[in-house]
Amino acid sequence: MSETISPPTAPEWHPSTPSKVFRSELNPVDLLRRAAYMYPDKVAVVHGTRRSSYRQLAERSWRLANGLRAAGLQKGDRVAVILPNSPAMLEAHFGVPAAGGILVSVNTRLASAEVGYILGHSGARYLVVDQELDPLVAPLDLSGLTVIRCADTGTAEDPYEAFLAAASAAVPESWLEHEEETISVNYTSGTTGRPKGVQYTYRGAYLNALNEVIVAGLSGDSAYLWTLPMFHCNGWCFPWAVTAVAARHVTMRTVDPERVWALIDEEGVTHYNGAPTVHLMIINQPRAHRVERQVTALVAAAPPSPTLLAAMGELNFRVVHVYGLTETYGPTTVCPEQETWAELAPDERAKLLARQGQAYISSDLVRVVDEEMNDVPGDGETMGEVIMRGNIVMSGYFQDDPATEKAFRGGWFHSGDLAVWHPDGNIELRDRGKDVIISGGENISSIEVEQAIVAHPAVLECAVIGIPHERWGERPKAFVTRRPDAAVTQEEILAFCRERLAGYKCPDAIEFGPLPKTSTGKVQKFVLREREWAGHEGRIGAASSSNR
Amino acid sequence: MSETISPPTAPEWHPSTPSKVFRSELNPVDLLRRAAYMYPDKVAVVHGTRRSSYRQLAERSWRLANGLRAAGLQKGDRVAVILPNSPAMLEAHFGVPAAGGILVSVNTRLASAEVGYILGHSGARYLVVDQELDPLVAPLDLSGLTVIRCADTGTAEDPYEAFLAAASAAVPESWLEHEEETISVNYTSGTTGRPKGVQYTYRGAYLNALNEVIVAGLSGDSAYLWTLPMFHCNGWCFPWAVTAVAARHVTMRTVDPERVWALIDEEGVTHYNGAPTVHLMIINQPRAHRVERQVTALVAAAPPSPTLLAAMGELNFRVVHVYGLTETYGPTTVCPEQETWAELAPDERAKLLARQGQAYISSDLVRVVDEEMNDVPGDGETMGEVIMRGNIVMSGYFQDDPATEKAFRGGWFHSGDLAVWHPDGNIELRDRGKDVIISGGENISSIEVEQAIVAHPAVLECAVIGIPHERWGERPKAFVTRRPDAAVTQEEILAFCRERLAGYKCPDAIEFGPLPKTSTGKVQKFVLREREWAGHEGRIGAASSSNR
Repeated sequence: MSETISPPTAPEWHPSTPSKVFRSELNPVDLLRRAAYMYPDKVAVVHGTRRSSYRQLAERSWRLANGLRAAGLQKGDRVAVILPNSPAMLEAHFGVPAAGGILVSVNTRLASAEVGYILGHSGARYLVVDQELDPLVAPLDLSGLTVIRCADTGTAEDPYEAFLAAASAAVPESWLEHEEETISVNYTSGTTGRPKGVQYTYRGAYLNALNEVIVAGLSGDSAYLWTLPMFHCNGWCFPWAVTAVAARHVTMRTVDPERVWALIDEEGVTHYNGAPTVHLMIINQPRAHRVERQVTALVAAAPPSPTLLAAMGELNFRVVHVYGLTETYGPTTVCPEQETWAELAPDERAKLLARQGQAYISSDLVRVVDEEMNDVPGDGETMGEVIMRGNIVMSGYFQDDPATEKAFRGGWFHSGDLAVWHPDGNIELRDRGKDVIISGGENISSIEVEQAIVAHPAVLECAVIGIPHERWGERPKAFVTRRPDAAVTQEEILAFCRERLAGYKCPDAIEFGPLPKTSTGKVQKFVLREREWAGHEGRIGAASSSNR
Repeated sequence: MSETISPPTAPEWHPSTPSKVFRSELNPVDLLRRAAYMYPDKVAVVHGTRRSSYRQLAERSWRLANGLRAAGLQKGDRVAVILPNSPAMLEAHFGVPAAGGILVSVNTRLASAEVGYILGHSGARYLVVDQELDPLVAPLDLSGLTVIRCADTGTAEDPYEAFLAAASAAVPESWLEHEEETISVNYTSGTTGRPKGVQYTYRGAYLNALNEVIVAGLSGDSAYLWTLPMFHCNGWCFPWAVTAVAARHVTMRTVDPERVWALIDEEGVTHYNGAPTVHLMIINQPRAHRVERQVTALVAAAPPSPTLLAAMGELNFRVVHVYGLTETYGPTTVCPEQETWAELAPDERAKLLARQGQAYISSDLVRVVDEEMNDVPGDGETMGEVIMRGNIVMSGYFQDDPATEKAFRGGWFHSGDLAVWHPDGNIELRDRGKDVIISGGENISSIEVEQAIVAHPAVLECAVIGIPHERWGERPKAFVTRRPDAAVTQEEILAFCRERLAGYKCPDAIEFGPLPKTSTGKVQKFVLREREWAGHEGRIGAASSSNR
């Protein structure tokens, strides 16, 4: 009961940055302060058999902050973390900014050399690394870094726990002076080019956290399941969003679909996010069943197919289609489902839900433009580049002014993604970056071909790339994963395509098998391309910027 | 269907204030732009038999803005409105700031002289007045004002409609340069002192709108019933909050409880706000019945009594207890109901829910301090003044620096309200302003006595004031309204009090009858006091600042 805790003392509720009576700097750290103050005994984190309350999450985060300061952290120092979705990872999202540091959360699926590049480029002075991920850093020279190892056991023998235990649990005095300072740097997962460090501001992280609360419909009795890696765009700001409403974080080191269902049933999970492939994995698990309390699932990276929508609807999962990039704090547009869509035929509804839509509340509405930055016609056919601006755009690339200037040319952030603009103002992606296929001078949207193929009931998922062709330059080729229980031939799929697509858009070849994927479930088209283009020129390079 | 509308054109989606690629000024007007862009055909406003879509609400708001500019409006000009809860009133909340004006929404229950004072003090150059409220301004010299009369008919003969029809429906270019500029001035309802003009900023209004979305749990399928007057703290920022999620506004010129039930049943109302007396009126209406879809009701001005909580629970109404002042954009604290409270006995739960709680997400946590601004002990007993600061505090009193400096002394806003601070960090009001009763040197909380009396099952509502006493200075007197079907004597109520309160806190006298109330349902204790103190000295003056 709430009566048992000790009386408030001044530092706990003092605003982090007293500037004016009527202004406090927007700071995601304050969301945890408030949650711990108002809901101290509420369960904040469930991690296997470990549970911690908001008071505990806060105390542990302040200990991390104070420990870092005791170890010499100066304002703006970069603190890198190489961690799975775990309590330590959540604590880093509060403790590092509470200390005044900048969080650099490293993708745990990278190769050692890539990790080394990020540690070097970010100039990280501190590193928190999970013991299981130690092989990633073992080959690296870490002499310039203070390294804290984490066994993720929560026991006194865990070096991370010892680090916390040695530090003060008091709320650290805030060093934040302005909400436009950098809270984190997230490195893009460039595939052949060097990754770039995307800077998030305190203001942007705070506003996007509130946006996510509203888009996902989070409330105090929500339980959010961490299927999305927190190293990815700071988990789309959900560490801060879930905490803003003092809801429950349910963390998992790896996404095991059977365990997902156990947690849905036992912890009353109400929300999770991911790419379609994550949702596919979950809904196709043998334990899958209709849930009594609706589960909201944000889908990004690719539009939900009619099949996926239908299957999720049957389970009582509400699907929200969102789109964004690392540079936009994760999702920054949402498909605005209209009341009338519920009455449409499933295929028709899926077609509309496949649109990436328009801006989040605190984003500016996005545009689709030609090479001169003129708006393309809103005809649903003319392709252009998606550009963004406003509070939910990064403040720039860390120590890379040329790349920032290029990305911000004309006063807007250039996504590199190609889309059409529908008459209703919604955008619909045609291709991520350079994924467009240019065949005989015609642009073919790989997404359009993919959407046609996944509409086939026997198809689980699909990726289409351009392969070299002597006469046309490129021709589409489809890589298809069949549903476990389904049989379909290449000829049948081709016939299915011809009914739905112009002839020149139909793939020349179809290959069956599993698809290569990133840690976040995005299909790695560059892997397919490298194989198909081996010995050819020009295409590999063009693909390098497609997977920001 | 969304496909039928015309393609987007540049001015509709351009950010209102392009400052940096990664920053747009927070502006509630943009919430309507976005809603109209993404949900153009959704019902935005229901007003009797009239319905308008978000496209129409936006176009009408832009017409109002362009009409004001055509009539000579310069940036920062004050535009006064004397309107009931109606489409014109909603449009003023978007059209006036879209024009670059400052909205001065006048309490429609004031006397002519008070309205005249506000028009003069604010320096309003424009006035929109409802024809039914014309008697309020008829005695005034309006020669310096451009007056637009509104018949609230929506027909071409309505002068307000003619004003809109003559103006452009294009989105007006934004003149906003910084989000800390003033969006509105709301005059406090001082009773004997002069009202003061409370300045809201664009930033504060925007952030509080998002906070209200989250506190009330508004979503795209919500329908918000306008029981709370929009002239009161800009309707607690709900004109902007409801629009942020493109939910439905249901407006009513006056609060008629039978009509409330008709709208709950026919329009699927999911949310409304008000003082306990408004809720009492609604739940005691003969049509009252359990609703299938839960209705969320924010209660302010006085804590919900156990009886009220029980009755609302039976109807499937979720009660959220909030607290604030005009100076804090309406509510700025919320009682954080804990999961464990559901298991408590109704009286025990009501006792905890009577606490005003702690800060909204974007407010700083509030404090309770003594006269030297030191924190009072968190013992639930020591009274002190509630002080606030942060994004949800006014930027000052309009053209009244001395009053602003006094209210902001020590870097915090001084509410004048007295509260205790509980060990769990929640505050609980003991008295609004000077409502405390000082009897023989002891402070008696009038709220505490009221809470004891309304716990009696035969009592509908109650107000307690101090009345003059030769020996003790003051003694409490209770004014009690009995439930329609209940009989209870003064002696029975006194006996009931003696079981619950220290002897010196029990009222010396009890009087039965209806209570005088403000337009927002707050009990007007000053009316009772004036009667009781006629011929005495000192107390009337002390009461003057109690009803900010």
